[in-house]
Amino acid sequence: VRITRISERSVRLRAGVANAVVNFSQHTVSLVAVHTDALVDGRPVVGLAFDSIGRFAQGGILRDRMIPRVLGADPDDLVDADGWLSPAKLLARAMTDEKPGGHGDRAAAAAALELAAWDAVAKAREEPAYRTIARHFGRTAASPDVPVYAAGGYYYPGADDQELRRELRSYAEHGYRAFKIKIGGAALATDLRRIETAIEAAGDGAALSVDANGRLDRDAALAYAAALAPYGLRWFEEPGDPLDFALNQDVIGAFAGPVATGENLFSHADVRNLLRHGGLRPRRDILQMDAGLSYGITEYARMIDEVEAQGFDWAWMYPHGGHLLNLHIVAALGLGGCEAYPGVFQPFGGFATEELARPGFARPGESPGFGLEDKAALRPEIAELLAATPDPSTSRAGRR
Amino acid sequence: VRITRISERSVRLRAGVANAVVNFSQHTVSLVAVHTDALVDGRPVVGLAFDSIGRFAQGGILRDRMIPRVLGADPDDLVDADGWLSPAKLLARAMTDEKPGGHGDRAAAAAALELAAWDAVAKAREEPAYRTIARHFGRTAASPDVPVYAAGGYYYPGADDQELRRELRSYAEHGYRAFKIKIGGAALATDLRRIETAIEAAGDGAALSVDANGRLDRDAALAYAAALAPYGLRWFEEPGDPLDFALNQDVIGAFAGPVATGENLFSHADVRNLLRHGGLRPRRDILQMDAGLSYGITEYARMIDEVEAQGFDWAWMYPHGGHLLNLHIVAALGLGGCEAYPGVFQPFGGFATEELARPGFARPGESPGFGLEDKAALRPEIAELLAATPDPSTSRAGRR
Repeated sequence: VRITRISERSVRLRAGVANAVVNFSQHTVSLVAVHTDALVDGRPVVGLAFDSIGRFAQGGILRDRMIPRVLGADPDDLVDADGWLSPAKLLARAMTDEKPGGHGDRAAAAAALELAAWDAVAKAREEPAYRTIARHFGRTAASPDVPVYAAGGYYYPGADDQELRRELRSYAEHGYRAFKIKIGGAALATDLRRIETAIEAAGDGAALSVDANGRLDRDAALAYAAALAPYGLRWFEEPGDPLDFALNQDVIGAFAGPVATGENLFSHADVRNLLRHGGLRPRRDILQMDAGLSYGITEYARMIDEVEAQGFDWAWMYPHGGHLLNLHIVAALGLGGCEAYPGVFQPFGGFATEELARPGFARPGESPGFGLEDKAALRPEIAELLAATPDPSTSRAGRR
Repeated sequence: VRITRISERSVRLRAGVANAVVNFSQHTVSLVAVHTDALVDGRPVVGLAFDSIGRFAQGGILRDRMIPRVLGADPDDLVDADGWLSPAKLLARAMTDEKPGGHGDRAAAAAALELAAWDAVAKAREEPAYRTIARHFGRTAASPDVPVYAAGGYYYPGADDQELRRELRSYAEHGYRAFKIKIGGAALATDLRRIETAIEAAGDGAALSVDANGRLDRDAALAYAAALAPYGLRWFEEPGDPLDFALNQDVIGAFAGPVATGENLFSHADVRNLLRHGGLRPRRDILQMDAGLSYGITEYARMIDEVEAQGFDWAWMYPHGGHLLNLHIVAALGLGGCEAYPGVFQPFGGFATEELARPGFARPGESPGFGLEDKAALRPEIAELLAATPDPSTSRAGRR
């Protein structure tokens, strides 16, 4: 198998929502296509993926550094012994001459490439990506059904508690049994009122998680921890700065319920430090690293190795990012569950259909690869990417 | 003062050298100009800077995210109470809607903008940047003379020990009294032979530092620590992965001499973790964070606050990156010293002149700003940047 071309475009999110830190109206995502000369039914296999949601499109890093490195490689150096494209080797090549440390934007850029390679391999094997991934890592998913929760409850412009109640009830009507809302973007008293409204709609505090998106300082995080304790929430997510491991430890010391974090750590080296220094409790606290922001599944597997080495269990891993890439990854590896964004962060948020397989569970489709083509909102974006005139610098032929 | 335009170009390093991890022949740096309507001698002030060396040009992040945010700001929101452009406010604006954590490429992109703002302010005040910076942070540098050391000893293609000896002797002839060479890119025995050659040329082990660039795993790092101990070296730099704080602690436990690290940490949050968990000893170990890779001087000052809060002394701070930006920063803040790259990493490496002010010391010039225009190798690059036809998206007028 040879890569013939790699194309990329920046797609703006259709989202008028904000969390405690970020307004998403200007957010973009990189949609990437890895074109190969493998043929299925006479047509070349094209691997598709994107760099999750929340850390922007990475066209500069892809075009200036990573795509030229991959296209400049000897094609034989990018395949496994069995002749399939190797996502790990593609990643290593994309990272040539990159220094250690500094795991930020480039981790998202590399992830889009690495995940597109998985999509290409699954399509060449004519199977859904979750089967390809599970086989590669020696997992046999008994059932591809994935526990999902509806992440919403953003600070919509002008939103009031009635709207929050309506939003959560709508998720419940669509089959969701667990929910998450944003906190930390308003005064504590206002947030507690929102939480009580949400618990009323959810039916039980144990069905509701709250997410501060890393906004709170130490005093505020401890004040929230004390105020949240009586509600018996499902989890308290990212109380403080994602790199302030001592703060995380202090919050855990003051909060008996589960604390969730990790979505803003993009390497196994950062996750190792969180596990060493963050006070997390095995089989209680939740880990939310997202392969699509973290160099892809190759590095995510290194994170899992670290999780296991430090006595934690991957059934407590719930990746950030409610979309088809993570639905397949969670199904393949038997992780705890997957975030879902019913109706928001389009065209990337959500799965192929808004319908759940059964209450509380989503199921990846059986189309080859991640099935991005099955998602109606993504189809025109994919068509535009594939129809674009190739930039000579992004094709092997053009670089000769 | 209003920003009228921000321009950027990617400049390739002229460097045929490699360290243990990275070959620099494909490396690029972003050169940035912040054009203002402030006039000095009837000509508009243009602030210039670049994103240090080693983490690539960041044209994508600058053009796609940061420059539009800055140009879209109300100009009044980018100035201090005294009417000068505020580097801190410009940085905050450039970081709008960016999530916490993930301090990588964007930290370099933001740094180029923030440092260009400092250059603009210093030029508007008609003084060298080190004076502007020192005043802002309440420092009064007794002497602008900065201790420097010659960082070289790379694995040049085909280099042998004769060439290493010649290289260090040439630095000594140019007035350098301290030196650094790369290790970890060859077998330990080979590196020890290179170290002995270098000590012979340097005259004393205490004049020589060695830099493994984060390449060594735990066993190798401890083996190097044991083997290096007898030489009484100036410091042992980045033995292992820059984020493996426990490894750093273990190396320090096995190595009485100073250990240096920090050049691959790009935020005060990462530095806080290094200081908390890395085993560093105040007034012994060396901190090498680089403002040009780390959101600029605003964030570097937060790092210094963290250094002081944890009982360390900024006289043990030696920024990575031997160039004019850091020479001014070290002089302004009275840090321990500055790296120098005599003759390499052109056009950015080195100072305005290859001549030292006196043996072992370099002195920033008295031209306004960082004095990048005084460096012959940079002048044509600056001229090309300023002569380029403005991209409408990078000017205020074009965005209306």
